[in-house]
Amino acid sequence: MTDVAAFSFNKLVIFGVGLIGGSLARALRERGEADGARTVIAVARSATSSARALELGVIDSAAALNDDAALREALAGADVVLLAAPVAQTGPLLERIAPFLDAKTIITDAGSTKSDAVAAARAALGARIGQFVPGHPIAGREASGVDAALADLYVGRNVVLCPLQENAPETVERVAAMWRATGALVRNMAPEQHDRVFASVSHLPHVLSFALVEQILNSPDAALKFSFAAGGFRDFTRIAASSPEMWRDVCVANRAALLDELDAYTAVLARLRTAIEAADGAALEAVFARSRVARTEWQEQRAGGVASSDASK
Amino acid sequence: MTDVAAFSFNKLVIFGVGLIGGSLARALRERGEADGARTVIAVARSATSSARALELGVIDSAAALNDDAALREALAGADVVLLAAPVAQTGPLLERIAPFLDAKTIITDAGSTKSDAVAAARAALGARIGQFVPGHPIAGREASGVDAALADLYVGRNVVLCPLQENAPETVERVAAMWRATGALVRNMAPEQHDRVFASVSHLPHVLSFALVEQILNSPDAALKFSFAAGGFRDFTRIAASSPEMWRDVCVANRAALLDELDAYTAVLARLRTAIEAADGAALEAVFARSRVARTEWQEQRAGGVASSDASK
Repeated sequence: MTDVAAFSFNKLVIFGVGLIGGSLARALRERGEADGARTVIAVARSATSSARALELGVIDSAAALNDDAALREALAGADVVLLAAPVAQTGPLLERIAPFLDAKTIITDAGSTKSDAVAAARAALGARIGQFVPGHPIAGREASGVDAALADLYVGRNVVLCPLQENAPETVERVAAMWRATGALVRNMAPEQHDRVFASVSHLPHVLSFALVEQILNSPDAALKFSFAAGGFRDFTRIAASSPEMWRDVCVANRAALLDELDAYTAVLARLRTAIEAADGAALEAVFARSRVARTEWQEQRAGGVASSDASK
Repeated sequence: MTDVAAFSFNKLVIFGVGLIGGSLARALRERGEADGARTVIAVARSATSSARALELGVIDSAAALNDDAALREALAGADVVLLAAPVAQTGPLLERIAPFLDAKTIITDAGSTKSDAVAAARAALGARIGQFVPGHPIAGREASGVDAALADLYVGRNVVLCPLQENAPETVERVAAMWRATGALVRNMAPEQHDRVFASVSHLPHVLSFALVEQILNSPDAALKFSFAAGGFRDFTRIAASSPEMWRDVCVANRAALLDELDAYTAVLARLRTAIEAADGAALEAVFARSRVARTEWQEQRAGGVASSDASK
């Protein structure tokens, strides 16, 4: 149905060439000039932080964010701009970009929260809001930074787009085609729905995982506890090794939905606490059995559709 | 220092030949007759439930728990009895065994909780309590049952023993030698300390993981949420696929320590909730950064000592 080559463009500008931006660049460059991105430019807070991306051949050139002339040149004639920095930077980046933005350039982002990105984009872009297509690739690894970038990171992964009323259909389609070219599956959602879903299945588990490590650290016998922690702890806390800056921003940006989920979770815990205190084995077993069935079914459905990998989001 | 062959014995009787009991049987049988267990007998609630273990060659013979004559024969002259059933069965099993117990037989267990096992053993064995050495191999897999049993499940894993004042040193040493023969590292702890440590690093994470799946199941958009759950959810909830019966028993048996940990955890969550609500990024980042450092150091130390595997406890 979709002409994959339709996404082809001359110039992709990435703000934040880490794991996410770097993997997109790698994926598109692997497709070659006829069917990918001819030129990939990175913009970073300082030119030196793009040096590694240049060294690895992930990008063609780099510009420093605080250099007006370089930024103007980078953005001139850009087909697509991808924002792939921690989400608190979305607003400031869009404000910085706005004065240099071509009318035909499409901006999209890779942030884990979408309502805040839409609000920031409306504030920064005003009447040009139709140029911004909110997005969120559901992929990641524990490792961060451009060294961790993989050309196949998005293969079989979901990418959520949250098209705005102001987006022209062909604008949304160009972003969708770009992501499909990486092997991703593109799905559309409203920003509020996105934020509620990911507060539940991603943001809350990260908070819970960080909290468990924090609790152990605060206990008097932390070293002993860590020395006996095994496979269950390992998996439960793997996401506690994620970027503190990224997750700080996500928690703040999506705090309304996250607080709803946290409160609902605390209510479940309170119910389990009551059952544990009352030694109510039947109540506990009912919850555990239901969870096991759901978790097992989820795993089986997933095994059909997605390759096992170390996606961490 | 220790003569590994010292653990060699003629007859090992396992109550509950699933993953844990079956893996011990496999490990000891692989060592051969001169340096392992000559005969392994399984006792199960019904003879038929041992059929698979017989078929797999994990055991030599089976006895039904409710058959007095078979049980008497199985226990006659046994060197070691291992209890490897869900922990609520420890007391009833010991009461069932007591009338047939030889004075030289050593009993040990593999339960995830130890204070309750000691209390049950004191009640069931009375003056013969010195024959019981409480134990807990820290190994597991998501899969359960004898089909999942592996000869190398315990290689490099910790086995905790909680020796009692009434245990003769050579009694404890025989159990320790048996576990060392499987490749495990034996460490001694007091039962209360064991229960506190594992409430923190194992029992609580299991409850938290079951609770997250339960929360999603209870939400109106559960199917949508599951459809977007990715790698973080996968790892966080892997232990929610664990045996409901086993974890029901653990939660009830270790409820005092578990409630302490659950309350401490809830307090950490409440602190994080306050920071999220106040959009206090600095407070969140401080916790997340501390957790990340601790989790990363834990992983690095562990990588030195233990092979990566799917241990789930």
